[in-house]
This record gives sequence, C-alpha cells and structure tokens, in this order.
Amino acid sequence: MKNHVGREIPDELLVNGKEVYQGKNYRDGKYYVKASPRVQIREKPVDSKIIGSIREAILKCNMRDGMTVSFHHHFRDGDYIANMVMAEIAALGLKDITIAASSLGAAHDPIAEYIEQGIVTGLQTSGIRGRIGEVVSQGKLKTPAILRSHGGRVRAIEEGDLHIDVAFIGAPTSDEYGNARGKGGKNDCGVLSYSMVDAKYADKVVVITDTLVPFPNFPPSIEAVDVDYVVVVDEIGNSKKIASNALRFSNDPRELMIAENCARIMAVTPYFKNGFSFQTGGGGPSLAVSRFIEPLMRERGIKMRWSIGGITAPIVDLLEKGLVDMIVDAQDFDIRGVESVHSNKNHYEISISQYANPANKGAFVNKLDFVVLAALEVDTKFNVNVITGSDGILRGAPGGHPDAAAGSKCCIVVTPLMRGRMATICDDVVTVTTPGECVDVVVTEYGIAVNPLRQDIINWLNDAGIPHVSIEELKEKAYSIVGKPEELHWEDKIVAIMEARDGTILDVVRQIKTYTF
Amino acid sequence: MKNHVGREIPDELLVNGKEVYQGKNYRDGKYYVKASPRVQIREKPVDSKIIGSIREAILKCNMRDGMTVSFHHHFRDGDYIANMVMAEIAALGLKDITIAASSLGAAHDPIAEYIEQGIVTGLQTSGIRGRIGEVVSQGKLKTPAILRSHGGRVRAIEEGDLHIDVAFIGAPTSDEYGNARGKGGKNDCGVLSYSMVDAKYADKVVVITDTLVPFPNFPPSIEAVDVDYVVVVDEIGNSKKIASNALRFSNDPRELMIAENCARIMAVTPYFKNGFSFQTGGGGPSLAVSRFIEPLMRERGIKMRWSIGGITAPIVDLLEKGLVDMIVDAQDFDIRGVESVHSNKNHYEISISQYANPANKGAFVNKLDFVVLAALEVDTKFNVNVITGSDGILRGAPGGHPDAAAGSKCCIVVTPLMRGRMATICDDVVTVTTPGECVDVVVTEYGIAVNPLRQDIINWLNDAGIPHVSIEELKEKAYSIVGKPEELHWEDKIVAIMEARDGTILDVVRQIKTYTF
Repeated sequence: MKNHVGREIPDELLVNGKEVYQGKNYRDGKYYVKASPRVQIREKPVDSKIIGSIREAILKCNMRDGMTVSFHHHFRDGDYIANMVMAEIAALGLKDITIAASSLGAAHDPIAEYIEQGIVTGLQTSGIRGRIGEVVSQGKLKTPAILRSHGGRVRAIEEGDLHIDVAFIGAPTSDEYGNARGKGGKNDCGVLSYSMVDAKYADKVVVITDTLVPFPNFPPSIEAVDVDYVVVVDEIGNSKKIASNALRFSNDPRELMIAENCARIMAVTPYFKNGFSFQTGGGGPSLAVSRFIEPLMRERGIKMRWSIGGITAPIVDLLEKGLVDMIVDAQDFDIRGVESVHSNKNHYEISISQYANPANKGAFVNKLDFVVLAALEVDTKFNVNVITGSDGILRGAPGGHPDAAAGSKCCIVVTPLMRGRMATICDDVVTVTTPGECVDVVVTEYGIAVNPLRQDIINWLNDAGIPHVSIEELKEKAYSIVGKPEELHWEDKIVAIMEARDGTILDVVRQIKTYTF
Repeated sequence: MKNHVGREIPDELLVNGKEVYQGKNYRDGKYYVKASPRVQIREKPVDSKIIGSIREAILKCNMRDGMTVSFHHHFRDGDYIANMVMAEIAALGLKDITIAASSLGAAHDPIAEYIEQGIVTGLQTSGIRGRIGEVVSQGKLKTPAILRSHGGRVRAIEEGDLHIDVAFIGAPTSDEYGNARGKGGKNDCGVLSYSMVDAKYADKVVVITDTLVPFPNFPPSIEAVDVDYVVVVDEIGNSKKIASNALRFSNDPRELMIAENCARIMAVTPYFKNGFSFQTGGGGPSLAVSRFIEPLMRERGIKMRWSIGGITAPIVDLLEKGLVDMIVDAQDFDIRGVESVHSNKNHYEISISQYANPANKGAFVNKLDFVVLAALEVDTKFNVNVITGSDGILRGAPGGHPDAAAGSKCCIVVTPLMRGRMATICDDVVTVTTPGECVDVVVTEYGIAVNPLRQDIINWLNDAGIPHVSIEELKEKAYSIVGKPEELHWEDKIVAIMEARDGTILDVVRQIKTYTF
C-alpha cells in the first residue's frame, strides 16, 4: 500500500494493527493503553544492590535466548557499555538477541560480528552506522532493523511495540541502590535522558558505573526504585569521545552563508519575538545559526525563553549572556553542555518523552518555534533523508529530526546543494525519514526554497525582500552541476523499516545489490 | 481467616487474589505486572491546555457515574480542591463516585454529605477524620473504605488495585501545558510528591492552579506530558492552613522526657554513627527528638547523611547547621520546610514511590536507620493503631507509619502512657495499622519497652544501663491508673478495610454500635 509520502509499503508488514504513514497528526486524539513492565518486589530492606560483574547481572536477570536488551547513547562514540554487555552475552552462548538502543554509532562496530553470527537477530535503534550499517544493508540481520526517531522510540516503548527485557544503563555516577546521574564521575555525559524510559519500562534494570558515590546520589536521572542491580566496572567509556572539547566552529564561507540566511529567515517570521524557543543540531551551519541570531535578538531587544536539543557551547554562551532564559537538555554534545547542566540553575535535564514523544499529552517539540536541522538529501516533495547514504547503505540517524520538524512552527533544513559529486536536492530521497509536510524551508548556499504548504512563510520572505526559489529550481541547479545520480539497485529483501514517529510505516530500506566487477 | 497479627479477616473479602496479612516482607521477591493508564495522544501542537472551569474539565474528561477521582493532601487542612471538584461533580448529577485521596482531613467535612447522598460510594485514603470518619463509622458509605499507608497507596495504584479515572491535582504553580510545581505561587506547599503517581497512572489528569506562570515551569513535580487540562481558579487553598507558621515546640516535661529517652536509645545503637539516616513525624515528642540528638551528634562528631519524612523546622535547622547532608522531602509541614525545598540545594523533592512504596525495587524507607513515630494505641504485641479512636470511630491516618516502621532498622514509637482517661498501652489495639513485628521500641513517660524480637536492642540498652520494662508492665501500669477500658460494641457491617502496605488485609473496622440512652 502506498503511504502518505508515496512510498510503497509491502502488505506483509501491515499486520497486527501496523499501518502505513497517513500524515502528521494522524493519531492525534486517539487513545491507547500504556505498556508496563513485569517487576520484582524489593520489600525487604537490603543495604546494597551491587553485584560482582556484568556476567552476574545477565545471569541474575535470567536472560534467555530471544530476549531484548537496551542501551543508551549518551556516551556517543566513547561508549564501552554496549560492547562489554554484548561480549558477555555472546560468551554465555545466548542467541537470537534483539538490541534496542537509543542509537548506535562508530563505537559499536564489534556488534556487526554478533549480527553475522546470529547472536543478534533484531535491532531497534535510531542511529545505524559503520560496520553495523554495512552488515544490515547486506541483509545479514535476521529480521528487518526498526529505525525510529528519538520521540518515536519512547512512543514504541510506552505503547508496547518494543518491550525491553533487560536495560543496561551506563551511568557516570551511581550509589549502591542505583540512583544514577550523568554527572560527578570520571566519564561525565551530562544527562541520562534517553535511558529514563528504559528504566521505567524494562522488566529488569541494571546500572553500570565506574564511579560509585555515597547514597543517595541526588537528584537522580535514574531512580533506585526502578533499578534491580548495580555493577561497578573500571571504565564505562572514553571520556574524550563522550563530550568533545569543542565542536568545530565553521569557517567555511558556504556554511556561514547558509547560517546567516537561516537567521534572517527566522527574524522575518512573527515567531521571532520575545520569549521564542529554538532548537539546533550539532552540525557546522546549525551551530553557526546561534551566532547569527544573537545580533538580531539584540537589535530587537528580545530574549529566547528556552532552547532544547543536543546542547553545545553556542547555546550555553547565549544562556550565560542572559539571552536565553532556560535550556532544557536531552543530550550534551560537548564539555560546555556537560558543565552547564551541572552548574547552571537555568539548565535542566529532561526525559526524551518530555522532549519529543508524539504519543504523550504534549512534548516540548510541540511548543517549539524554530528548529534548524541538517539533511543528507531533500527531495522536491521536501522529504528529508538522514539515514541512507547516496550508495543506499545505512549510515545515519533520524534522531530528533522528525520530532522537532513535526512539532515546530518553523522547520528550516540547512544543507549544501551538493556533497562531493552528489546532488543533495533531488527528485526522490533514497529513504524518507522526515515527511516533507513537516519541513518548511530549505536553505542551501545556492538559494532558499519554501514549502508551498507554507504560503505564510512565503509571504513573510517576500515582504522582507528575501529571495527564494522553488525546490525544483534548486534540484535542477544541483543536477546541472553534478548530474542526476544513477538509480540504486536493490534486492527484494527488506533490511530496515523506517517508522514514522507515530509508529506507522514511513519507508522501508531494502538490501543493496552488490556488484561484481 | 486469622492473619499474621491475629485478626480475623472474613472470607468474603478474600476474593480476586486478595490475601490476609502474612508478615512483613511476605511478598519480597515476587513478581507483578505494573498497571498502566489509557491515555489520549496529543501529537498535534497546541499552544495551551487551559480550559475555562473545573466543570469543563469534568465534562471534557467524559466523567461518568461509577468513576474514581483522586486528590492529594499537600494542602492539608487548607485544601480547597477536593471540595470544589466534588461540588461540581455533585452539581452535574454524577453518582457512585469513588474518591481516591492520598489523605482526607478536617478540610473535607463537606464530602460527608456526598457520602450520605450516595454521590460518593467508595473511599480509598490514608487519613479519614472529622465528619467523613463519623459517617463511614456509622456505616453510611456504600462500600468499605480502603485505608492504606502512603507507600501502600502507590503500590495499589502501580499494581492496579486502584485505577484512577481522573486525577485532579492542585498545584501552587503551573504553566499553560501543565508543568506543575509546589512552589512559586500564593499558596505554596513545597512539594507535590503524593500526586506524582496519580499523574503517571490516571487516565486523565487535570491540574488546578491559582498561579499561572510562563512555560516552562521548571523543574516540574508534575510533567506536562502527563497532563490533559489546566484549570485556573481564584484560590486553591488557604495558605495559612497549608503550611503552618511554626509547629508547636513542646514545653511539656512529659513529652520532653520521652524525646530525650528516645534520643538516648538511638545513641546506644550501632546505627548512630556518621552517615546515619532519620525520619521523624510532626508531633510534639517526635519534633523534640531532633533537638535532643543534636548534642549527641556533636559529642560523637558525627553527621546525619539524610533525613526524610514530613519536613519541619527542626530538621531544616540541622541541615542549615551542617549536621545533615541532605533532606529528601515527600511532604512539608511548615513554612520552614516549604522555604527550604525552594532554596536549599541539598533539600530534594521525591515521589512517594521513592519514599515508601513496598513493591518497587527499593524505597528510601528500606535504607532508613531510625524512625520515631507516634501512636494512638500500642498493644502488648507491639501492634500500633493510628486510625481508630478509643471510641472506635475512624479519626486518624496510617500515613507513612507502617512504611517507615517496616523499612527502618530501628523503629521507636513514642506515646504518653495514657490520654485523658484512656490507656494508650493496652491488651489489644482497636485496629492494627502497623504490625507489632515492625515496632522495635516503645517509649512512654513511665518507661521504655523493647520488642522481644529485638534482643540486640535489649542488649544495647542493658549495656548502656538504660532501664526498660516489658510492654505488659507498661500496660498494667496504665490500667492501674485509668482502668481497663470497656469493650467496644460493633455491628457486623465492615465499614473499612485496613490494608497492609503490601496489599494484604491487616484488619477490618466494623460499624460502631450506637447506643440510645
């Protein structure tokens, strides 16, 4: 069946109530009964929940073949937890395991081997990259990987689509009861927002830390009332890769021009007023937008009420300058972010449900004025792809992209017109990760295109004399320079399902055809 | 069937898996599947959830006959919320309503009338007093009231024994999305700990405030993601009765002697060491204990790690003097408590699940060294009654008593030997609210009795030369002064079920026989 973004979704996937994507807000107002875990009562007082090893935790949790384990990605490329746990699971001879991670990245290449061995047969994640992306694209995972946005993951867990048997939660600090925080250890990550839903919905919860602190470790991101066991290890990660010293500030004139145009567009909308809210990502142009909006805010004499998203130095700067009232933080990308959420009383940790869950009663993204997002590809229907490369291989992450795009009043996608020899603006993205109806403006170094669904924004730009073109013109420009790419060739086998944030199916990714030369 | 504390529990109550009390920690290690609410998806961004009135909230929540509504008691005797909501429910002609309050008190006399009219036919609460206690004791509530400890209430909700259709949560401040706090308004109560479980487990959640603040109202006690509607009213309560200016400091030499002995007992146990934890209540002798332990702590050069419970000025004093590292706060009894949780970074709000839920994976009470608690009666089996008066009328509240008693290493009950012409230490308490196996020491102005189950405490007292007697001797002393009370006379009808914190049945309260003179 063809869905709302024109993708053909095979009928065999449309079982057990699963539906195709039917447009944003399709499920608004509908009811569902929340899922819940099967938990063990700890009525009898014990002094400590610390046990000797990850292996002991796996055994005490009665792990069996076919179970689902979960991990978070606050340690980013510096994570040791997923690999340590999976190595023990493999060593114990367990198989048919599903990994339900908030995201997987470069740190997790060793898991590719468990996929090839059939130890891991299911994958539910936002990010999929490196060796894992390759083996999944080659059809080596037994079941299709399920790819979700950050908000979509919380929805899937809370709605019962994804049941976690054992959550392994890496924590920079924990006490002996499992009150865990992103702060105070030797491998600080700032917040533990992604794992909050795991702690509440997994049957068993194991906290793994390298820094044990006195009870109670307060205020906790993960509450001891949800934690079965605590394991102390030497290192939970590589701190250098957890929080970068500083993200690169762009000097690329192309990126700076995109960022400046982005700020100009924001400033001509009526949303750019005192008390506005803003999210940006960690890419070069996105980061630079924060720099360009500062003078515009000062000029108007306005302040931002709150900023959200992956937190980085530029936003912390605005907070410290008094130009932002409050940061609500679901992830820290650099040391400034980590330090600020420790020390600044106007910088708050939130859960991913609070950030972006489409199925709760109103997430922060629903109150967002502006979001600036990147893209691997944008097509002439404004659909965005941030998951598959131009070669069709899985190497990205929807992350909070579809959530912030759907919720915000003005979603601006920034991207160079081409990357290397590939057009970024194209006829059809390889995979739809964010539906075009959620994307309002596309800014490239060759011009700006506004989604025709947003006649209001078109008028504001016209009134302000900001030039813009049609998305087709951008695409033609790109094709005229680098040519139209050749069609990708696929096998029949579906290797990944891209879920919309509401749980409907937005797209599928098939096995890539390998050529023999 | 006779239960573990010797009370006869009628078979008709032992249905649907309901069991009699079988001793503390009976359910430790057992599994259960958590309950969950039926919620409505709010995917489509809206700017505000504010609606016009409580009546509109009741209608929008599709309230019907037979539903269960919930309230919290952070506003104590100053609460306006329950009465305002119930008046609208009555005005709309709804009937057969169950009220599931964390506690009901003097503020709620008007609800007695709804019971008599059959508008309210079910009651689940901790505290039951005043007119409500009277009409329930007279058998006018259609179904037996279910009385629970604070921890037991969370357990009942999380285990699905108590399903809340609509939670009405009074909040000193809220933003237009329902992020609600106990702070910053004109009727501050400090924390909203009791209502956290309602927000997470009720199908519909309505926040009622008199102080609307800018979004986001952070950090929230009640998260907007769980809130359906926000109603703004003139006054949520009477601030004078919400947080007392100061609780009475006892000058009664009898109370001071009890308090001093209590502190002496604490100090001879091995638990009285650096890093110990402590809970006390709001009664005269309990409050005074904090004063008497201070010099003992200074003498030993030790500090308290954390204090918990209803927070009052004496504990805030110890925090500010640096003698306590941390206060974990589930309820504030006075203005000092309310102010401190606003301003002191070592004073934290917690949920009641964190405080005392016996069915989670380890509550704070499980880590408690000492608790000092009051009693209406204590019997020679050390069973405590804090719910029925000597006339058999419901006029008390188990509150956190059974939870802290069960969890703590040393539970001391302080009570005068007699109250007026009634012996407090007696053969059999009217109603068992805290099982004797959870009570370690009883301190009266006539002497100290240690539970024979705690030979270790007996030895520590002997070693320290602290005199103590048997509980029978205390009882005989009381009876010798005021005489043995006459038996109460009951009808057959069960008017209330006293649940143990684990959900088993600890005791029943029957309709009191009325005499015609």
